[in-house]
Amino acid sequence: MDKGKRAKVEEEESELDAELVQAIEKLQEVQDELERVNEEASDKVLEVEQFYNEIRRPVYSKRNDIIHNIPDFWLTAFLSHPVLCDLLSDDDQKVFKYLESLDVEDFKDVKSGYSISFNFRANPYFEDTKLTKIFKFSDEGTTSVSGTQPKWKAGMDLTNGVLPEKEGLKRPLVEESFFKWFSDTTQKLSLDGIQDEVAEVIKDDLWPNPLKYFNAEPDEDGFESGEQES
Amino acid sequence: MDKGKRAKVEEEESELDAELVQAIEKLQEVQDELERVNEEASDKVLEVEQFYNEIRRPVYSKRNDIIHNIPDFWLTAFLSHPVLCDLLSDDDQKVFKYLESLDVEDFKDVKSGYSISFNFRANPYFEDTKLTKIFKFSDEGTTSVSGTQPKWKAGMDLTNGVLPEKEGLKRPLVEESFFKWFSDTTQKLSLDGIQDEVAEVIKDDLWPNPLKYFNAEPDEDGFESGEQES
Ligand SMILES: [Ca+2]
Ligand SMILES: [Ca+2]
Ligand SMILES: [Mg+2]
Ligand SMILES: [Mg+2]
Repeated sequence: MDKGKRAKVEEEESELDAELVQAIEKLQEVQDELERVNEEASDKVLEVEQFYNEIRRPVYSKRNDIIHNIPDFWLTAFLSHPVLCDLLSDDDQKVFKYLESLDVEDFKDVKSGYSISFNFRANPYFEDTKLTKIFKFSDEGTTSVSGTQPKWKAGMDLTNGVLPEKEGLKRPLVEESFFKWFSDTTQKLSLDGIQDEVAEVIKDDLWPNPLKYFNAEPDEDGFESGEQES
Repeated sequence: MDKGKRAKVEEEESELDAELVQAIEKLQEVQDELERVNEEASDKVLEVEQFYNEIRRPVYSKRNDIIHNIPDFWLTAFLSHPVLCDLLSDDDQKVFKYLESLDVEDFKDVKSGYSISFNFRANPYFEDTKLTKIFKFSDEGTTSVSGTQPKWKAGMDLTNGVLPEKEGLKRPLVEESFFKWFSDTTQKLSLDGIQDEVAEVIKDDLWPNPLKYFNAEPDEDGFESGEQES
């Protein structure tokens, strides 16, 4: 290749390079534009969710009032739920007799977290009237979990493996208590991205329609028939 | 128990039953109200998504025009993508030299499906200029998949295990071709609920920002360096 030819090829190459650089710059501008559109879209979706959460709030409150007049509503719904039914030990079911209401609340801004609260009447088991588990989402996509460690009354702690009132045992002594869940804040991420299956089942399945599960049981005394086993 | 006492107990019981039935009826009304709110909320979210899809459409079209001026853009992006890079055989990469543009399009109503199209220039491999894979979502939550079966030119079918132009083979003969994906419509649901990982990676990761992957490669000729192996 003579000098002139090589110079021409190099010139053409650098022209091509300049065009390529320009195209990539333009492409970056378009990507920036798309990102702005995506952010605006997410904001609008969030606004819609916040709006309807405010609409739902008084309806859930009205629902809690009604549920209050149905004996053992949440206990029955739990025991009739395919996942939750396995989580309540016999003793847990006795504690659930004192459960007054349940509440699942998104944070006001919806996207940054939610809480699940169990409200109890004065009871022989713990001092608390409210046990809460809280999930906080960070902007970076992480979740931090906190929960109430129940203040058990003397000899009544169901979560330490020593169960009260066990004489003629017909089943293994150590039955995991549901109440461990409140203070279990270990970070476990399952294959399908679920952080806390119990929390997600309560929030996304039980809470939206507990009546579906309450009604699922043919007879309404899920507690009584559960008791007959022991 | 005497007759009077029994009658009184029964009366009280039937009063309680009537109250319970009434409470459950009220609860059902509240659940119906919640369902209406939820449906309205979903509709509004869908409207927002549809609106922003229309905003994005011309931006994606402008992006396609720019990409058209960047040689081997999609090939490079594929080869620089952590998941997609493993899917292209050496021969697939030769076909991708003829890839003009890519398109990912939600159905107009967004919720009922989407398509992924690869547009090719006239090429020595198949008669088609467009290969498409389509995912249709039903109201019942099922997905039906359909795709283009490429019309391979004589002796050029890369998907039947017999590869063209193989003399001094340095690697196993049968290398799975990416082009099988277009007509692979078997229903496989993985543990994490993903139906077609390739489709979801293209739709949710590559398509929103292919420049990220195009730029990820330190030198721009991903094709050339891939070629040196054979
Ligand atoms: Ca029962
Ligand atoms: Ca390279
Ligand atoms: Mg109650
Ligand atoms: Mg192109």
